Amino acid sequence: MRIGIDLGGTNIAAGLINENLEIVEKDSVKTLRGADAVVSEMEVLAHSLCSQAGLRLSDIESVGVGSPGAVDSREGIVVYSNNLEFSDVPLAAMLGGKLGLPVRIGNDANVAALGEFHAGAGRKAASMALITLGTGVGGGIILGGRIYDGFNGMAGEAGHMTVVKDGALCTCGRNGCWEAYASATGLIRMTKDAIARHPESIMVQISEERGKVSGRTAFMAARQGDQAGNEVVDEYLSYVACGIANLINLLQPAMLCVGGGISHEGAYLIERLQPLVDAELYNVGERKTEMCLAELGNDAGVIGAAML
Amino acid sequence: MRIGIDLGGTNIAAGLINENLEIVEKDSVKTLRGADAVVSEMEVLAHSLCSQAGLRLSDIESVGVGSPGAVDSREGIVVYSNNLEFSDVPLAAMLGGKLGLPVRIGNDANVAALGEFHAGAGRKAASMALITLGTGVGGGIILGGRIYDGFNGMAGEAGHMTVVKDGALCTCGRNGCWEAYASATGLIRMTKDAIARHPESIMVQISEERGKVSGRTAFMAARQGDQAGNEVVDEYLSYVACGIANLINLLQPAMLCVGGGISHEGAYLIERLQPLVDAELYNVGERKTEMCLAELGNDAGVIGAAML
Repeated sequence: MRIGIDLGGTNIAAGLINENLEIVEKDSVKTLRGADAVVSEMEVLAHSLCSQAGLRLSDIESVGVGSPGAVDSREGIVVYSNNLEFSDVPLAAMLGGKLGLPVRIGNDANVAALGEFHAGAGRKAASMALITLGTGVGGGIILGGRIYDGFNGMAGEAGHMTVVKDGALCTCGRNGCWEAYASATGLIRMTKDAIARHPESIMVQISEERGKVSGRTAFMAARQGDQAGNEVVDEYLSYVACGIANLINLLQPAMLCVGGGISHEGAYLIERLQPLVDAELYNVGERKTEMCLAELGNDAGVIGAAML
Repeated sequence: MRIGIDLGGTNIAAGLINENLEIVEKDSVKTLRGADAVVSEMEVLAHSLCSQAGLRLSDIESVGVGSPGAVDSREGIVVYSNNLEFSDVPLAAMLGGKLGLPVRIGNDANVAALGEFHAGAGRKAASMALITLGTGVGGGIILGGRIYDGFNGMAGEAGHMTVVKDGALCTCGRNGCWEAYASATGLIRMTKDAIARHPESIMVQISEERGKVSGRTAFMAARQGDQAGNEVVDEYLSYVACGIANLINLLQPAMLCVGGGISHEGAYLIERLQPLVDAELYNVGERKTEMCLAELGNDAGVIGAAML
């Protein structure tokens, strides 16, 4: 049995994972502020998972943690996380010291990719890139069954690849990052702009009924044939496709898996995205990267963390 | 002994490579048109290298060929090459049939990266990305001492990653590719634009003396303190840095090696490029990708091909 912990800015989710990569016990808490508080929360979660399963901590093989931000997986350090307000936090050593167990950490998107590869959509793939289209855009690359994280443990930042040089400001402080356009945040910005220009669009009613413009507004309108909604979805997906094509042209993974909140649009998303991606591929031979939806949702992070 | 062949649109260079990865014999011919003619030329080159060295063809362990364009290295097929006017040419089987030797092929930039990694600038690196700034922009990724070319043998097309969505037209027919800006071709376009706007620039004299605007014009002017020349170099290098930062943010190779014609600007190039790249890095921990110049020039392609 292993413990996987998905450390998020809002919640910490933890699970007890068996040898078949199934979650047998699950628990979560709100994320407190400060590294010491977070480590204490994770310690409590580990104990409670064990007691739920009638195990002792010494029955646990290892603990893995997926953390947002820049993570040095080799050294076990969260170098920087805006969400957690962490800077150079030796998370693996801190938690390992409390639990007396081996602890490994990784970037949350890399860890989710690992989970999705072994227990989800990537089960039959030789290699995979996962992108998560949520508040931000995360990316994880799985080669040879393992996270590819470069010589220093920090690779895979697909969301911060520049696709519009000198373009829109990203939360990271740089300009033109893929994340600034392909995230739900980017989609909401495009939707709001379109609503301002098109008072006749059903996006107006949809957003009023739901009390806000969300990443779903334009998709809901587009599915109902709304022209302005379709234009927003087309514009948004052209940015999503741009970054996906960059990943494929550079890495040619067997599978390109799309996760995150936007992926709940399901088959409709892939159907609209596929021709846009195909048009941007440079090398098209017999064997083409397969695009698919993530299957595990938030469980990917917990399962992947346990596999670190 | 192995034979390495660098198949270019203008010349075919071939070399006999010993166990220390040194070129012991070398030969080259102009590239003819048509796959049969090219294969015959390579056959003749192989025979002539052997006779120069007093060897028989049967003394040769293997032959490798680096080819421009989209190459399926697994199947030994040049899927498409604009330069060679090749389409689905089974180059490995054709040349292997003529020589009675095992022949492997790879994309020329990938192959040059392999040579540079094992016998050049990358000798002490754990992993490396090579970019070649020439007429086009080539890219090759070396992980675990081997070419990383994806699940279908076609990865590494860094030059065709989009950095300006809906930007300048690239020779590949797509828009905004890194190659459209960071190639010598892109630099020459920027230089010509600046000359038109700045008749006072010494770029005017430099290009007149040399009979043309080249990839060196703006660099020569900049080194002499010419303002317009400096502006062109700044603009050009901002595009080069954009793509390099994308590669580092995504792949974090231990070494990022810059080759191709533009790399002849030497240390001056790296000195001006480094701060621009640093400003675009997303994760900056203790260990940072080292940027360096390619050392082997055209020999990288021949040596790398022999190592396939």
